[in-house]
Amino acid sequence: MFGVTILGNNSALPAYDRHPTAQVVTLNDQLILIDCGEGTQTQLSKYKIKRSKINHILISHLHGDHYFGLPGLITSMGLLGREQDLHVYAPAALETIIQLQLKAGNTDLPYTLHFHALETYDDLLIDEKKFCVQIFTTEHRVPCWGFIIKEKRMPRKINKEAVLQYAIPASFYEALQRGEDYTNKAGNTIQNNVLTIPNKASKSYVYCADTRYAEKNISVCSHASLLYHETTYLQNCEDKAALRFHSTSIQAGTFATKAGANKLIIGHFSSKYETLDLFLKETQAAFANTDLALEGVTFLV
Amino acid sequence: MFGVTILGNNSALPAYDRHPTAQVVTLNDQLILIDCGEGTQTQLSKYKIKRSKINHILISHLHGDHYFGLPGLITSMGLLGREQDLHVYAPAALETIIQLQLKAGNTDLPYTLHFHALETYDDLLIDEKKFCVQIFTTEHRVPCWGFIIKEKRMPRKINKEAVLQYAIPASFYEALQRGEDYTNKAGNTIQNNVLTIPNKASKSYVYCADTRYAEKNISVCSHASLLYHETTYLQNCEDKAALRFHSTSIQAGTFATKAGANKLIIGHFSSKYETLDLFLKETQAAFANTDLALEGVTFLV
Repeated sequence: MFGVTILGNNSALPAYDRHPTAQVVTLNDQLILIDCGEGTQTQLSKYKIKRSKINHILISHLHGDHYFGLPGLITSMGLLGREQDLHVYAPAALETIIQLQLKAGNTDLPYTLHFHALETYDDLLIDEKKFCVQIFTTEHRVPCWGFIIKEKRMPRKINKEAVLQYAIPASFYEALQRGEDYTNKAGNTIQNNVLTIPNKASKSYVYCADTRYAEKNISVCSHASLLYHETTYLQNCEDKAALRFHSTSIQAGTFATKAGANKLIIGHFSSKYETLDLFLKETQAAFANTDLALEGVTFLV
Repeated sequence: MFGVTILGNNSALPAYDRHPTAQVVTLNDQLILIDCGEGTQTQLSKYKIKRSKINHILISHLHGDHYFGLPGLITSMGLLGREQDLHVYAPAALETIIQLQLKAGNTDLPYTLHFHALETYDDLLIDEKKFCVQIFTTEHRVPCWGFIIKEKRMPRKINKEAVLQYAIPASFYEALQRGEDYTNKAGNTIQNNVLTIPNKASKSYVYCADTRYAEKNISVCSHASLLYHETTYLQNCEDKAALRFHSTSIQAGTFATKAGANKLIIGHFSSKYETLDLFLKETQAAFANTDLALEGVTFLV
């Protein structure tokens, strides 16, 4: 299972029962929280998502609607007796803020909290056995990062009939899975693709965070299995969007088209819009396979 | 109108749709917010309380469940175009935290935010025309303050028949309302209580914040029209309550009795309790005129 559950899809002001930004990525038994607006811990409870399974939290930037829920989540995890380490990846200033808050509350967490300043990474942020996370900068009013979460390509599968036929020793199977060719004692080489079957392609989720329409990011975001792009405004507010370093519906659709995404979800809706149907209509005009990032919905990557 | 609306009545962890601590005191056209746990801005919207009418925010102490909603409220007020000054009364460290957050978000508020460090006040915190706020320290794990919000005694009312009978000049009416006696040209003094009628007594709301049962505060909290006292635990957790600097049901009732309160409301319930009926039953055994501080309910002072 590789999916994204939306916990909050509104921009700065909470409105119409829409919450500030937060999403949970499920990668098999791992949960990764992306952004953590005020009330995220309540949304996690509402959608029965186990906070104990969250080991990585990515904070795109330091506007409050993307992190004001983090201090509460961190302290609640402590009150719930968490023991395993928690890793927070965020702009450097967040560590100072959180440490001040813990000190003011005389709070000793029962687990170790690791801060990773996004400023100190170029590209690869997390490199785990089954997935990795890459980062890129967006065009926003304050320093802001997007995230690319990629499954690692599964090893190739052994073709059981072929390995018997060519008498490949079992000790070489791991090398075959990595893609190596086999040369026997007689000096004959058997090509890897004769002996193995390719596994399914690795999938990726690309989270574009808050951003102005940014041509520069099209290549780094290319060929996402699932792409999230903000649409704070409808198309008739294109000037306001540019001024405020946000995007419109059509811009999100255009970006998805140019980046060759498989599917697009849109969110970060301005509180000025009570209904969202025009967002879907306008964006689909530019990129057909678009869905609204509705709260509580899980999108498969 | 002098009343208190409960926005959150739970202790540290949000649970069972109960929220962390926040209350709004209405004093005629003034709103005073007491504590501001995560999600307070959403609770204000839910109960249709105009945040534009809040000019004073009192934060009792720096445990997150009493202030993690403040950064969001402050920035939302800015996004909503607030122009009038806002006064925050809190432990000094909160100013540093909020200023760091505003700086990290590159946020310029369109209004002036005044911080008042509670550590620098002895007794009188706010002295307005129609009300005043006094503070006292509670017994908690970190420095913590309680608040006494008092209506100012209304001027005495002119007894219209009496002032005509004694031919009191209209220019002396203001002095009469302040309680002065009148001496006429013949040198005869007419007592004030012959010429005026006392106005109704001033009322007070006492908010005891988070605290261990504290005998030392009984005198300063005496004769409250309405008293809020925390009851984190039921009576069978008295030892745990003392250890964690919190109070039990019976302790809250005992405090209200000894302080001669008119009415008691109780809150700050531990998340371990799904239902609250035992809190009411136990507290009423020690102080009959007790109500649960249920969210959304307004209690007249």
